[in-house]
Amino acid sequence: MSEQTLGSERIYDGKVVHLRVDRIRLDNGHEAKREIVEHNGAVAMVPVDGEGRIVLVRQFRTAAGKALLEVPAGTLDNGEKPELAVQRELQEEIGYRAARIRRLAGFYTAPGYSTEFIHVYLCEGLSESRLDADEDEQIEVERYTLAEALALVADGRICDAKSIVGLLALAREQRA
Amino acid sequence: MSEQTLGSERIYDGKVVHLRVDRIRLDNGHEAKREIVEHNGAVAMVPVDGEGRIVLVRQFRTAAGKALLEVPAGTLDNGEKPELAVQRELQEEIGYRAARIRRLAGFYTAPGYSTEFIHVYLCEGLSESRLDADEDEQIEVERYTLAEALALVADGRICDAKSIVGLLALAREQRA
Repeated sequence: MSEQTLGSERIYDGKVVHLRVDRIRLDNGHEAKREIVEHNGAVAMVPVDGEGRIVLVRQFRTAAGKALLEVPAGTLDNGEKPELAVQRELQEEIGYRAARIRRLAGFYTAPGYSTEFIHVYLCEGLSESRLDADEDEQIEVERYTLAEALALVADGRICDAKSIVGLLALAREQRA
Repeated sequence: MSEQTLGSERIYDGKVVHLRVDRIRLDNGHEAKREIVEHNGAVAMVPVDGEGRIVLVRQFRTAAGKALLEVPAGTLDNGEKPELAVQRELQEEIGYRAARIRRLAGFYTAPGYSTEFIHVYLCEGLSESRLDADEDEQIEVERYTLAEALALVADGRICDAKSIVGLLALAREQRA
């Protein structure tokens, strides 16, 4: 199962996303266009503090038109190892480093049109360490037990892919 | 927590995605650009057959550069109710209608840059009913027990947001 690329047109090169349109031929001979959003990939973190609470961030999301409550996350720099991005983003977004990180999951956000792949990590052994946050971001930190966070997933108040995957994967491990 | 839109530039209008760049002002006074992929939203289905097996689809994904095993899904037409899209896409992708559908979850795929929201449904009481599939899609159908599908999530062979969210949400309900 494969496809042949017949041509590719570059549409836009931005800061976070790039857009191209490919013309492809399927195994069945049909030709089609594919609009492809190129993205460097990202890391998302489920940080658990010394009292067992999960540290979440609330920020306004232009694309959603409202503020969302999410696990901390950030885009990978070019060629950056996910584990390094995890520590950088933890310090920028919530002001911690993690002594222990472990991969929980990984997924394409929208493989029908986006190259973005998110690596999700459990982060434990948090100690205070702050890096200056991006001035383009305004973030509020909130803390919830895993049971509380799972209730927010169930009632739809936590409603983005990386947060749901991270929290459900952790719940499954812990039989929570 | 809000932001003010200062301007918006339209970059591209495609079949599946549209791209715009907004200039915004944060509550802290900083101005920033936001690259926004506009998408109609989508439905994803966890179809369970009469023997309790989950019906999955395998297809080549240009954005991923390989074939992926996923739950069936499809983009919403303009203004289309998710429940109607569920029945249409089930018939097009796997050749079934569902007597019973129930919402399992809903999420933004990538709220940092995409407006896409996916509604995920459990689909039961399947009966054969085929609509012509999109000739742009080549799809193979595979069936797995929930335990088998969860093992594919755990080892990374199922690796896209909607499939992981749907399967983990169902597992949580069933304590599987």
